[in-house]
Amino acid sequence: MNAVDIINKKRCGEALNTEEIEYMVMGFTEGVIPDYQMSALLMAICLQGMTKEETVDLTRIMRDSGETVDLSAIKGVKVDKHSTGGVGDKTTLIVAPIAAACGVPIAKMSGRGLGFTGGTVDKMESIPGFVTSMERDRFIESVNEKGIAVIGQTGHIAPADKKMYALRDVTGTTESISLITSSIMSKKLAAGADAIVLDVKCGAGAFMKTYEDARELAVWMVDIGRGNNKKMTAVISDMEQPLGKAVGNALEVREAIDVLRGDGPEDIRALSLRLAAEMILLGELADGSREKAEKMAMEALESGKALEKFGQFVANQGGDPAIIEDTSLFAQAAFAVEVRAEAAGYVTALDAMQIGLASQHAGAGREKKEDEIDMAAGILLDKKVGDEVQAGELLCTVYGNDKEKAETGAREAFAAYTIGSNKPEKTLLIKEIID
Amino acid sequence: MNAVDIINKKRCGEALNTEEIEYMVMGFTEGVIPDYQMSALLMAICLQGMTKEETVDLTRIMRDSGETVDLSAIKGVKVDKHSTGGVGDKTTLIVAPIAAACGVPIAKMSGRGLGFTGGTVDKMESIPGFVTSMERDRFIESVNEKGIAVIGQTGHIAPADKKMYALRDVTGTTESISLITSSIMSKKLAAGADAIVLDVKCGAGAFMKTYEDARELAVWMVDIGRGNNKKMTAVISDMEQPLGKAVGNALEVREAIDVLRGDGPEDIRALSLRLAAEMILLGELADGSREKAEKMAMEALESGKALEKFGQFVANQGGDPAIIEDTSLFAQAAFAVEVRAEAAGYVTALDAMQIGLASQHAGAGREKKEDEIDMAAGILLDKKVGDEVQAGELLCTVYGNDKEKAETGAREAFAAYTIGSNKPEKTLLIKEIID
Repeated sequence: MNAVDIINKKRCGEALNTEEIEYMVMGFTEGVIPDYQMSALLMAICLQGMTKEETVDLTRIMRDSGETVDLSAIKGVKVDKHSTGGVGDKTTLIVAPIAAACGVPIAKMSGRGLGFTGGTVDKMESIPGFVTSMERDRFIESVNEKGIAVIGQTGHIAPADKKMYALRDVTGTTESISLITSSIMSKKLAAGADAIVLDVKCGAGAFMKTYEDARELAVWMVDIGRGNNKKMTAVISDMEQPLGKAVGNALEVREAIDVLRGDGPEDIRALSLRLAAEMILLGELADGSREKAEKMAMEALESGKALEKFGQFVANQGGDPAIIEDTSLFAQAAFAVEVRAEAAGYVTALDAMQIGLASQHAGAGREKKEDEIDMAAGILLDKKVGDEVQAGELLCTVYGNDKEKAETGAREAFAAYTIGSNKPEKTLLIKEIID
Repeated sequence: MNAVDIINKKRCGEALNTEEIEYMVMGFTEGVIPDYQMSALLMAICLQGMTKEETVDLTRIMRDSGETVDLSAIKGVKVDKHSTGGVGDKTTLIVAPIAAACGVPIAKMSGRGLGFTGGTVDKMESIPGFVTSMERDRFIESVNEKGIAVIGQTGHIAPADKKMYALRDVTGTTESISLITSSIMSKKLAAGADAIVLDVKCGAGAFMKTYEDARELAVWMVDIGRGNNKKMTAVISDMEQPLGKAVGNALEVREAIDVLRGDGPEDIRALSLRLAAEMILLGELADGSREKAEKMAMEALESGKALEKFGQFVANQGGDPAIIEDTSLFAQAAFAVEVRAEAAGYVTALDAMQIGLASQHAGAGREKKEDEIDMAAGILLDKKVGDEVQAGELLCTVYGNDKEKAETGAREAFAAYTIGSNKPEKTLLIKEIID
């Protein structure tokens, strides 16, 4: 086999076979295929595409380039949940306890990541004492005993993806549905669950700006997962404006607790129940009935069992469960900057991306891997799209321990709001379920 | 400016502006832009194309990446001739003296190159004493005084092309009309002539296998040359079978002398007259009349003035002009292997590529830069397409100083012939003139 022949084949628009994809991906990962050949192939893939069959192969080969987690010692159908990322997206913290309370074994591996806030691991660490590093045996044992455990992602998952992603980033080869899908799915497949519920976001605050693009990605991820023997469901949800009212690490955990207590914003509650129901359904606990799965999720939430499960989960990983009753135990921000409306009207748009950046700049997120997160930093939104405001009324409050950063965030948060004279149409939060 | 933005722009099919092309090409040549970014851009160019305007820019920028030859001290319109390369193509050795005898100043820079035989420089060096290295001043003076001089190409011509070509070769990015055109034309433009006559070959022994591909390349080269203020004409000629009857260095020079003497094979004579006429026309010596140019070329050949010019040219560069009368002064091969027909019939095909390889393997050409050329090695074709043969009759003779190599060449030369029972149709040698 020869790299130039393989690149030429893809340049001519032909499909590569399993051996050819493996030769290039593993050769590149191991440093045998030089980066200039890989970048030429990646560009050819961007412009000529890959079939789903090729993408199934590519994803599996990338998964197998590193460590894969063996969850076979956990009883039942292990269901994972993955979000393509958005602003104010704390659904994992709500969905996981609901599903676990219904009997779905939740063995979750989460990242820290860059962006508007920390990843799920960062958010959980805003709970005093909570730890996400755990021996593999104790992780398995925790899931079997408590029904739920979350650990940080190791660096050994899908090294091929890591190396390819770094190259794509600097060679203008990020825009390919096959490369995007394989990058996400190789890591999810390595995490070892039997089934995956995807939350694919679309809108201003999401990776995919339009419904059409989000739908295409959702369909590809579902197909590539199934091609690798995973049960898959995807939910396409709106990310024009932030989800819920809290953006930031401790702020989001507090909102998640509110929802688990039966309160909290309607949108985050509705999406969490939807995702939990899909997990229960894929977990084969609702006799294949979506209606029954929805009922089970609702009951777990309303009965307080999900909140109870959350408490067990926190305690099991060293966190102080008292935070559930006493939110003053969370880190508190030294500064709170209020953002007020200049004129009366309706909030016609609230740009999720701008709010995300405002939150990050207030201290809640990392720009570089080495950056420290201010756990107390973030934004509480008083007004969201459709709300009426008076001149001088509070739109949101930006929190942080660095006054200057909080003020920067406040200026940016103000700019994220569009106030108009007409009440806007309500947009659909859950746009489609692909199953 | 940013490399990733430029790559993305080309990936999306947009045209790059002069500054963007310069940023990438010069950055890459100087080692600032890494090869993995350049290969991604090259693949995007292969698949999205470049406009002629972009290609004019690219070619000029590649030309200006290195040394350019200043021929302004030479009187008259300097006309260069370039062939895309074929087997048995010794036209330069005939065309240059004819055109020079008609008053076209010939200041030619030629390469050694790899392939079936040496380049023009190698061929000329088969004349005892002939040297192609010359101070720039003496080169200019020679053209002004003798009307013709040929020097070897320096290593400082178009280094951007050298580096890009090496990368294209290992990244599956050779197939792009813009990249092919700019690679050839950047070097021709650097050579400093005012006008260029191109001989674009098509067929089995040429880079372009079909007339359509050859025509496309010819039109692109003409347009890109004109876009850089050169007067251009292209002749598209057949290269299904070798040109003339001699392939090899000394053998080709001897055949060129035959043609200059008024003998020699008809095809090489006809093509040489055609190319010489086009040079005279572009050289503004025939009052814009192609008919007059043809007549001038023919007269120079038939009067012996072209042969006389060849003698002056050889003597001026240290060669022994006695070789014109006494071909025994050329290096003689120690071995001659005859190739004979096994059955009677007509030569229906004579694969130029196969004959070229046979010649190379007999010792006439280099595979690697470091290889030594056997000046006496090569092939004399007794039979060409359309000729009738009897069983056991001589098809060709393979010469060389290494017996084993000559025998290998002979086996390959035999395989190049196809003998059939029907006399084939005559193909057109000169297919089109693009002016």
